[in-house]
Amino acid sequence: MDVYISGVGMTKFGRSKEPLEKMMAEAASSALKEAQLERVDAIYMGVMNVEEFVGDSNFAALLTDTLGLTGIPSTRVETASSTGAGAFKTAFYAVASGHMEHVLVLAGEKMTHLPTTKTTRILSEIIDRSERRYGATMPALAAMFAQKYAREFKLSPSKLEDILAQVAIKNHSNGYFNPYAQFRKKITKEDYLKSQMVSYPLHLYDCAPITDGSSAVILTSHPTSIKVSGIGHATDTMTVRHRASFTSFNSTKEAALKAYTMAQINPSEIQFAEVHDAFTPFEIIGTEDLGFFPPGEGWKALEEGVTHLRGRLPINPSGGLNARGHPVGASGLAQLVEIVYQVRGEAGRQRQLERAEIGLAQSIGGLGDNNLVTILERSDRKRIVKEGWTPDYHPEINVSKRMTPSLPSEGVGILETFTILYATPEGFRSPLTLGFVKKDGGEVVMACNPDYRSPKELKMGKKVYLRTREGLYVFEKLTLWKQLKRWIKGPTKSSPKKVQP
Amino acid sequence: MDVYISGVGMTKFGRSKEPLEKMMAEAASSALKEAQLERVDAIYMGVMNVEEFVGDSNFAALLTDTLGLTGIPSTRVETASSTGAGAFKTAFYAVASGHMEHVLVLAGEKMTHLPTTKTTRILSEIIDRSERRYGATMPALAAMFAQKYAREFKLSPSKLEDILAQVAIKNHSNGYFNPYAQFRKKITKEDYLKSQMVSYPLHLYDCAPITDGSSAVILTSHPTSIKVSGIGHATDTMTVRHRASFTSFNSTKEAALKAYTMAQINPSEIQFAEVHDAFTPFEIIGTEDLGFFPPGEGWKALEEGVTHLRGRLPINPSGGLNARGHPVGASGLAQLVEIVYQVRGEAGRQRQLERAEIGLAQSIGGLGDNNLVTILERSDRKRIVKEGWTPDYHPEINVSKRMTPSLPSEGVGILETFTILYATPEGFRSPLTLGFVKKDGGEVVMACNPDYRSPKELKMGKKVYLRTREGLYVFEKLTLWKQLKRWIKGPTKSSPKKVQP
Repeated sequence: MDVYISGVGMTKFGRSKEPLEKMMAEAASSALKEAQLERVDAIYMGVMNVEEFVGDSNFAALLTDTLGLTGIPSTRVETASSTGAGAFKTAFYAVASGHMEHVLVLAGEKMTHLPTTKTTRILSEIIDRSERRYGATMPALAAMFAQKYAREFKLSPSKLEDILAQVAIKNHSNGYFNPYAQFRKKITKEDYLKSQMVSYPLHLYDCAPITDGSSAVILTSHPTSIKVSGIGHATDTMTVRHRASFTSFNSTKEAALKAYTMAQINPSEIQFAEVHDAFTPFEIIGTEDLGFFPPGEGWKALEEGVTHLRGRLPINPSGGLNARGHPVGASGLAQLVEIVYQVRGEAGRQRQLERAEIGLAQSIGGLGDNNLVTILERSDRKRIVKEGWTPDYHPEINVSKRMTPSLPSEGVGILETFTILYATPEGFRSPLTLGFVKKDGGEVVMACNPDYRSPKELKMGKKVYLRTREGLYVFEKLTLWKQLKRWIKGPTKSSPKKVQP
Repeated sequence: MDVYISGVGMTKFGRSKEPLEKMMAEAASSALKEAQLERVDAIYMGVMNVEEFVGDSNFAALLTDTLGLTGIPSTRVETASSTGAGAFKTAFYAVASGHMEHVLVLAGEKMTHLPTTKTTRILSEIIDRSERRYGATMPALAAMFAQKYAREFKLSPSKLEDILAQVAIKNHSNGYFNPYAQFRKKITKEDYLKSQMVSYPLHLYDCAPITDGSSAVILTSHPTSIKVSGIGHATDTMTVRHRASFTSFNSTKEAALKAYTMAQINPSEIQFAEVHDAFTPFEIIGTEDLGFFPPGEGWKALEEGVTHLRGRLPINPSGGLNARGHPVGASGLAQLVEIVYQVRGEAGRQRQLERAEIGLAQSIGGLGDNNLVTILERSDRKRIVKEGWTPDYHPEINVSKRMTPSLPSEGVGILETFTILYATPEGFRSPLTLGFVKKDGGEVVMACNPDYRSPKELKMGKKVYLRTREGLYVFEKLTLWKQLKRWIKGPTKSSPKKVQP
């Protein structure tokens, strides 16, 4: 059974004084009004971590009370930072099954009321335990992807900086026109450069902000002007160092393949997209993973203006997570709300795209380990699909190998990528240098480095010396002098920078 | 599209040294083996509060790694303590939609590793905030239901005690035969009476234990010997004091009506049931809410042996949550696993029921605010449904009124029900007397009482004096002497027993 969208709604994203359930009720109320409904058959409710952000559980029931819909079945859905898209997908099947006529998908998160170090710690719980132990955060891992991307595609540090700045500048410019965006301020390259370094090379403007907000969609089995054409969903290993690639996400590619196949649509037919730019490098990687541009060429499309609001393939016309804000549970659904506004021609004069009959949203859960791709389309869009059609999309799937970690052992390895993390989570001293090191034999391990503070002292692709301390790997420059000193004095006292909380 | 079950699995419930994901992998592995599958199209994963019990989020992705199923779409589903049933329902629609062929439903919780006061605090987060402030716990609210039930149906305190003991004795006797049960020990009335008072009148044996465990089911669109016939789901207000009834659950009745209607089955056709007996009074209430027995007569059926293992309508042949154990996220799915074992005739000589072609499971989320009812049936069961059939089930729905609470004000009220809570959550001194008091005008408020320690001093239906302290209601005996003392000395120092944590 085909599934359509009959109503959408969202709150202004940003800092809110309202409790989470009130924000969610506001978004729901707009969507219900648009759909001209007072009741629905069920509610699918996406919140990522209401237990720790807000201190409540049983939020699905709590919401029905707040909405004045007590009695209606209500189910909480969660797929980490792609939760909003996960809730949408789950609701989609409920309607597609023929068992439900009208379903409310409601997503939200409240985050700004907590201290940043606490929020960072809560967000870090979506990272693999063994990598979290090192103090790795989402920005730190994203920064290591950015570094590796630059190395793989031969971008100098200043070139990389320029590209990332361009993503932030473009998305802030789009957000400027979006009444729902948290940041409605254009930024310059100078603003970008002046902004705080979160995890080298990522500045504050490379990272989606901490945000309160909610978004809502009504799905229905009754035809409306907008149809859900394709949905794809895939996971990848949480253990980032076990991934075969640090410059793309398998989970995006596998999800996209499913969505294109289901929708019988090629990447080249997509007219605009909302791409999960929680970190600016992810927008570039996303546009490549989705088959819009070849690997290593997403940044060129950006430079050439292809992905700009008036370009051939606008990316994140809403401002993206970068400027609209990122209430983690809500973002995946907010992307779909933007697509609906665009397809309906209701995005406002300045933001409205000329070609907006078919749009795609890509949402990343965790560090690319639970991703969804959703395609929405004007119901009256004419197209002919030939028999035996298969999508013109053949991504390279780099299968992750979940290796059984060997016992920590000292030795020489290659520094694959690194970052210097300044915004450390609760319990870790700042700055914290982290890297992925490939050991002889091919195993990639996470390691920290207590000495270096300048990125200029570290080189990807160079040999480093790995030692172990308190069960963690520490990497050091491989110099004769160090080796000699170690041999004379025994292990140095520098250690992973865990401090007592 | 019809949906069938091709495999089930579960761990032995109890105290486990394994991490949660390992336990869940064990249950999944059994189910996959039964279904002769190595992969599935998707995983729906139920955990109630992995964030606080285990300290992880993004558990849906983590599980695919542990299962060796990296890549497969994985979605976390949560409906409080009915989570396992909620995940089952969500997966059901995915298969029913025709988009998926084989789906793994996997549910679990790990709870025993934390101190009991912490577990109690985490579990209490599923209670309405305004009632949680008083220190109300799940056992405390369940105890107040039991008290009200006794009063409404004219059972003396010793009669009530005897009935509740009989539930625990029956379910422990059933659990004795269940290799997956946490408690495999028959108990006597003496054991019951000797067990610690948790919240008067509920003894320890009235409360499901704290448990680690996992259960798994494979749903498929390919016909097998067992079919999913009916699913119903409904919420109720989280604010227990706003409910129109304290002796039944609307959410069970509304869910049951949907399930019976979908399955085209009458309550009288159900041959056995797993009923959510997290607290013994809930089993009695459940059998009435489900239409097996008239209101106020569930206890008689128990006394007459109707619900015993060899009775006409066995309830909780598995031992129920009471004896099998209650890993909160897993229980709703474990009930369905038991039904599958029974329908297949694989429950073991001692536990196997004679008539086991059609079974029902009822799962309670929160304090009866997010409930599910599921009916499973032998696929070859012959039955004729007449045109225009409607279920022979006409429960009285007592619509809850979510009232806007008035400003706390002193005055006289009627004590509707009460409990004395001994196992208080973190931050509250023990014992703690709690009650629902109906004020003039009909508003029911929660109130605590700092003085009384003996249940004999409190009478339901009697007038009490309500005063306010620190924004909470305190109820006192309405005596002339007290009134006079208050008038002379001003408010007493006794106050809600919040202590600094």
